[in-house]
Amino acid sequence: MAKKTTTKSAPTSPRPNAWAQRDAKTARSLRDLADGVVKSSLAGREPKFDVPTRAASNTKWNKSRGILQMGPASNTRELFSLGQARSFMQTLLHAQSIQKLLQQGKTSSLRGMYYESKHTIAGTKESTFDEQAESDKILEDLEVTLGSLREELHIFADVRGGLVGNITFIDAGDEINARRMGSGGYQIPSIVEPEIIQFAKCDAEFVLHVEKGTVWRRFNEDRFWEKHKCIVTHGGGQPPRGVRRLLRRFHDELGLPIICLLDCDPWGHYIYSVIKQGSISLAFESERLAIPEAKFLGIRAKDYVQCELPEDVQIALNERDIARAKQIREYPWFRDHRGWQREIKQMLDNGFKMEVESLIKKDISYVTETYVPERLAAKDWLE
Amino acid sequence: MAKKTTTKSAPTSPRPNAWAQRDAKTARSLRDLADGVVKSSLAGREPKFDVPTRAASNTKWNKSRGILQMGPASNTRELFSLGQARSFMQTLLHAQSIQKLLQQGKTSSLRGMYYESKHTIAGTKESTFDEQAESDKILEDLEVTLGSLREELHIFADVRGGLVGNITFIDAGDEINARRMGSGGYQIPSIVEPEIIQFAKCDAEFVLHVEKGTVWRRFNEDRFWEKHKCIVTHGGGQPPRGVRRLLRRFHDELGLPIICLLDCDPWGHYIYSVIKQGSISLAFESERLAIPEAKFLGIRAKDYVQCELPEDVQIALNERDIARAKQIREYPWFRDHRGWQREIKQMLDNGFKMEVESLIKKDISYVTETYVPERLAAKDWLE
Repeated sequence: MAKKTTTKSAPTSPRPNAWAQRDAKTARSLRDLADGVVKSSLAGREPKFDVPTRAASNTKWNKSRGILQMGPASNTRELFSLGQARSFMQTLLHAQSIQKLLQQGKTSSLRGMYYESKHTIAGTKESTFDEQAESDKILEDLEVTLGSLREELHIFADVRGGLVGNITFIDAGDEINARRMGSGGYQIPSIVEPEIIQFAKCDAEFVLHVEKGTVWRRFNEDRFWEKHKCIVTHGGGQPPRGVRRLLRRFHDELGLPIICLLDCDPWGHYIYSVIKQGSISLAFESERLAIPEAKFLGIRAKDYVQCELPEDVQIALNERDIARAKQIREYPWFRDHRGWQREIKQMLDNGFKMEVESLIKKDISYVTETYVPERLAAKDWLE
Repeated sequence: MAKKTTTKSAPTSPRPNAWAQRDAKTARSLRDLADGVVKSSLAGREPKFDVPTRAASNTKWNKSRGILQMGPASNTRELFSLGQARSFMQTLLHAQSIQKLLQQGKTSSLRGMYYESKHTIAGTKESTFDEQAESDKILEDLEVTLGSLREELHIFADVRGGLVGNITFIDAGDEINARRMGSGGYQIPSIVEPEIIQFAKCDAEFVLHVEKGTVWRRFNEDRFWEKHKCIVTHGGGQPPRGVRRLLRRFHDELGLPIICLLDCDPWGHYIYSVIKQGSISLAFESERLAIPEAKFLGIRAKDYVQCELPEDVQIALNERDIARAKQIREYPWFRDHRGWQREIKQMLDNGFKMEVESLIKKDISYVTETYVPERLAAKDWLE
């Protein structure tokens, strides 16, 4: 560990209860929800509340801000409606479980929430939840209804993704020097809010986000982050919310550009799209997860010619790839973007995809020593 | 970081080239393979070599050692055989790529190896490798032929799994204090050989290995490893080889019992079986990965009654589960084991599976504060 860091005064207690303020806000929203139900009941009106509509039809592309947003539509959820009674009850059950988590200062998984609120209704054979999918959906409803991210509701998803690089931060009271994380690296947790993770000493100038752990290992082994003063992250494929939220915090709070190195295929383009604008089905999270300034460094369709790659790197596009590419091309943020229109067209014209790993055909460290440094120097990226 | 550790004299250079000796051994095996081919060619005999047979038919259960082993059968791979010429050539191509990795002191992924050795044979439309699966198979052949683990051939798989706990170790020259890894934890790399990871200061008394990252998070959040002096690992489901190898090293070199907390279902039983005895398809790796003394703490079929769990924890066994359970029951190490025969029978009699997460029905921290501590105290486990 470096001796001189700005972290000396940082909290060292194992579990600082720094969530108090944020929890208080979440608890208030929960109480408002419950109060509304109680009030209408006492007044002899039917108990109900509004849930913002999570659907493509209620998703708007905010061009000036460069993010996807939820529209104003919402649905009323009523107790005395045959079609809604079940989800009404489920929402309140989960709200209760969340309140318990806040009180205990603990976190739970999506699976844990499902078990927590699952029980057979007395005197019936009816279960409050039949499947986890049903429970996950209700938790998303609660996120939008309360205006709180899932992480603020103390709910985490599975762990995926890691990092290494020129930064020291505090995680739950522990000082993490990401420059000294060996070959393994730091495992990015699901909840990375400022109450858990506080940035301390950063001398990185940007973040390089790569798609897979295997590519990440190449960058760590070659100590790319040291030579190029950066942080290298991976998301194990489609990055989970914890990784996206941490990238967003690196961008907003430390002013670091987020530069993505993903495969040249519709899957890589989609990962970029989600990092940049958010996902259509979960537009409400974009406000705090999307990074409209994120850059796509590669792999680019032009690389086959420009890097003089051999034929062996080509993986033919199949029909599903082609259909998906055409769909992505029509996303509003790509539709009006000449660079992206050209990029996707060129991939379709090529008729093949290319993976980051295929650059090994030039040399095992071509990607870390030549490809990325050259593109960075030339600011040759799509954004 | 703790100031007093036994690691002061540990290497601090970023990439200590400690592999030299082991690499020399691997290089010798590679040379022997190549020499054999050259010699027979020069002598006018047909070039060939033997590859030990990787098949269930050549897998033996060594009861006294408690591990799966490869039998003595092998197949000859010849150049002048229509059916073998392709794999003969592929094996030598990969051998060459591995030699290059050893010389460069770098590591590559399975995908990278595929690209590295893939090319179109001059003057034909034939490719050396059509798919990665073909390449992976040849790499396994090389492992058994050379008697070297894949990790010794400098080849890694994707990263999965993490740890936290009462141990300090050196990873590629960096001191990792696993007691100060925050909420995120240390990401277990794919290659954990002693040349990369050296154990320094350990005051753990056992390792608790849990199935999933979400369960692991509960144990970390409750600081179980601190209260119970242990290391807590997870493998993100079926643990990858890096995790298994690290568990084995914890067991052999530090004398730590490996205690597994997995789901009560055939998948959980199979994970335990692989940790304990190795997998049938890759018996040759058992020698250095299997941990015959590993213990299965839970979830146990009896827990439904013993822990007074509510009906909601039951997930009905489907036909595939039942068939799989019957198959696992016949594994030699389970077949002769009364405890396991009873365990699987009771699960089948119950007619349902149970997940670790379902213990949340008792209390969110029941698993960390009651269930595991009680079982540990009573040494109530299967082994």
